[in-house]
Amino acid sequence: MGMHSPSSALDQLMRRAFALAARGPARGVNPQVGCILLADDGSVLAEGWHRGAGTPHAEVDALSKLAPGAARGATAIVTLEPCNHHGRTGPCAEALIEAGVATVFYSVSDPGPASAGGAERLRAAGITATGGVLAAEGEQLLGDWLPAARLGRPLVTVKWASSLDGRAAASDGSSQWITGPDARSDVHRRRAAADAIAVGTGTVLADDPSLTARDEHGALLPEQPVPVVFGRRRTAPDATVFSHPHAPLFYDGVDLPAQLAELHARGIRSLFVEGGPTLASAFIAAGHADELLIYLAPVLLGGPKLALGELGIPSIESAIRLELLSVERLGADLLLVAAPTTPPTAQPATAAKGH
Amino acid sequence: MGMHSPSSALDQLMRRAFALAARGPARGVNPQVGCILLADDGSVLAEGWHRGAGTPHAEVDALSKLAPGAARGATAIVTLEPCNHHGRTGPCAEALIEAGVATVFYSVSDPGPASAGGAERLRAAGITATGGVLAAEGEQLLGDWLPAARLGRPLVTVKWASSLDGRAAASDGSSQWITGPDARSDVHRRRAAADAIAVGTGTVLADDPSLTARDEHGALLPEQPVPVVFGRRRTAPDATVFSHPHAPLFYDGVDLPAQLAELHARGIRSLFVEGGPTLASAFIAAGHADELLIYLAPVLLGGPKLALGELGIPSIESAIRLELLSVERLGADLLLVAAPTTPPTAQPATAAKGH
Repeated sequence: MGMHSPSSALDQLMRRAFALAARGPARGVNPQVGCILLADDGSVLAEGWHRGAGTPHAEVDALSKLAPGAARGATAIVTLEPCNHHGRTGPCAEALIEAGVATVFYSVSDPGPASAGGAERLRAAGITATGGVLAAEGEQLLGDWLPAARLGRPLVTVKWASSLDGRAAASDGSSQWITGPDARSDVHRRRAAADAIAVGTGTVLADDPSLTARDEHGALLPEQPVPVVFGRRRTAPDATVFSHPHAPLFYDGVDLPAQLAELHARGIRSLFVEGGPTLASAFIAAGHADELLIYLAPVLLGGPKLALGELGIPSIESAIRLELLSVERLGADLLLVAAPTTPPTAQPATAAKGH
Repeated sequence: MGMHSPSSALDQLMRRAFALAARGPARGVNPQVGCILLADDGSVLAEGWHRGAGTPHAEVDALSKLAPGAARGATAIVTLEPCNHHGRTGPCAEALIEAGVATVFYSVSDPGPASAGGAERLRAAGITATGGVLAAEGEQLLGDWLPAARLGRPLVTVKWASSLDGRAAASDGSSQWITGPDARSDVHRRRAAADAIAVGTGTVLADDPSLTARDEHGALLPEQPVPVVFGRRRTAPDATVFSHPHAPLFYDGVDLPAQLAELHARGIRSLFVEGGPTLASAFIAAGHADELLIYLAPVLLGGPKLALGELGIPSIESAIRLELLSVERLGADLLLVAAPTTPPTAQPATAAKGH
């Protein structure tokens, strides 16, 4: 097998493993992983993929299709470094060793502090383990799972809509609609793409939002983010959020890092923070905002209702610096996508989970 | 003479008159105006242009080059409707009538409430007077003079620089530099293009700005805006603004319309309002902002130092709606140029002056 030319047989096999991986669920605690087992002559012995939390990992799924001993001397092509972690299933590295696999090629290194080290374990058992095969494509396949696993928390997008002078509402609190229909549709599409959507209790009490992702006719989009409410105030038992297709989760927000780690442990890879200003500011000030979506409407409002509150920044030197990733016109409005240039704040390593 | 085909002899003559007009000063109370006097056979009898306030208007300048009676039966090509106004010089309409001119073609109608009506005056005297010849080019030549004459006040640009959350400074007031060098150069170029630059006394007291237009090395640009300070507080006698190449003007800002009309009467066609937030808000709330320049830096600041203050807007229905004219990246920053979609507020007609 030519191993390093771009269109080598190994690359073709890895792409086949990516396709197998994509058969598994795209959301949840575990990543999509595919595995191919090859005989010495290059013929495919078995294929496997991971079907979601609690089911066998891709390597074990592929091995399970073979008679005992049939994988002896085989080559395994895996999209993610075999785990070295005793979770609900045993570590895949051990399974490959026990099956007598001789060679392992994988694409992406396991980012989990608890689950990494699989390749080392394989090598210690005399297996040739080579990573980095089509790593960019492998990382792309993993989507938000990978950065969330590295951070030990969901990837956080903080969104707000404001006037050009930074106000989210007029003095009396009225804000429907600052932005136009194109911007609102864009928000709903991005809500649907997120695993969870977060608001503060202030917003629930003031606006009673549904926290659903809807199309322009108000119909629910196929995918709905899990509603998460942060804050210490009580939500009315008849709040609209209780009619959400997913049961809402409640956190007091006092220990944001631990609560984000818990959301991650529940399989929430991406969190769309809708506001209000207090919650948005808390996420940003704590370094828990990986992406900012700022919808700017061509209006001026003045007054006290700011889109973003206090950030604890005394002086210009400690301003939160951003990179402006894109600027897009949405109807009459403007969408700015930005990311902090300072590294994001991760959770304690112990909170992170392997695949 | 073919009169209405785009490349007619009349158009060519009017373009020659534009070129004559451009010999005059581009700033000041009066517009640039050019005039050509033609004999019956189409040969040029005389050319004239206006050299600035207190000197003859273009028509009179051209006539002055001819012997008495030499313009009898002539055709006048003028870039602006001959004035009907007794200012420091007599009305041009009367001068053309007295000289016996038979036909007048002009480009742009006189916008001044006091000086308009020249064409009517000519026609009443039996002269054929036709306007609108290459009017778009004629209006372009007149630049800010024309809309300022229509409004009876300077064209007002309100500029601010802010973080993406609408703050002009951090909590301690520090703001150097929110925006980068490209945005700052752009501001200085626009300062140089304006006839005057305005700040509030609060800004003078807090920042002691020079209010000059400078290049990236700090050297003065060739054109400098007249510094104007609005507010009731006293400026320190050693304030840097007193070192400006132009003597600063002071207004208490209490009667903004009258004070803008006075600036206009001084020949200020364009006013660049630099801030601070109180002055910017006052201009915007009063409907005296024709253009907004918003320099957005990719930073977040939080805190109480807003770029724009109170606008007296109680509810979203009364938001000041803008049209976003352009969005431009300047280094890491963003420049939004916007204009209110509601018509601008003009000054009392009596304050307006003709050319």
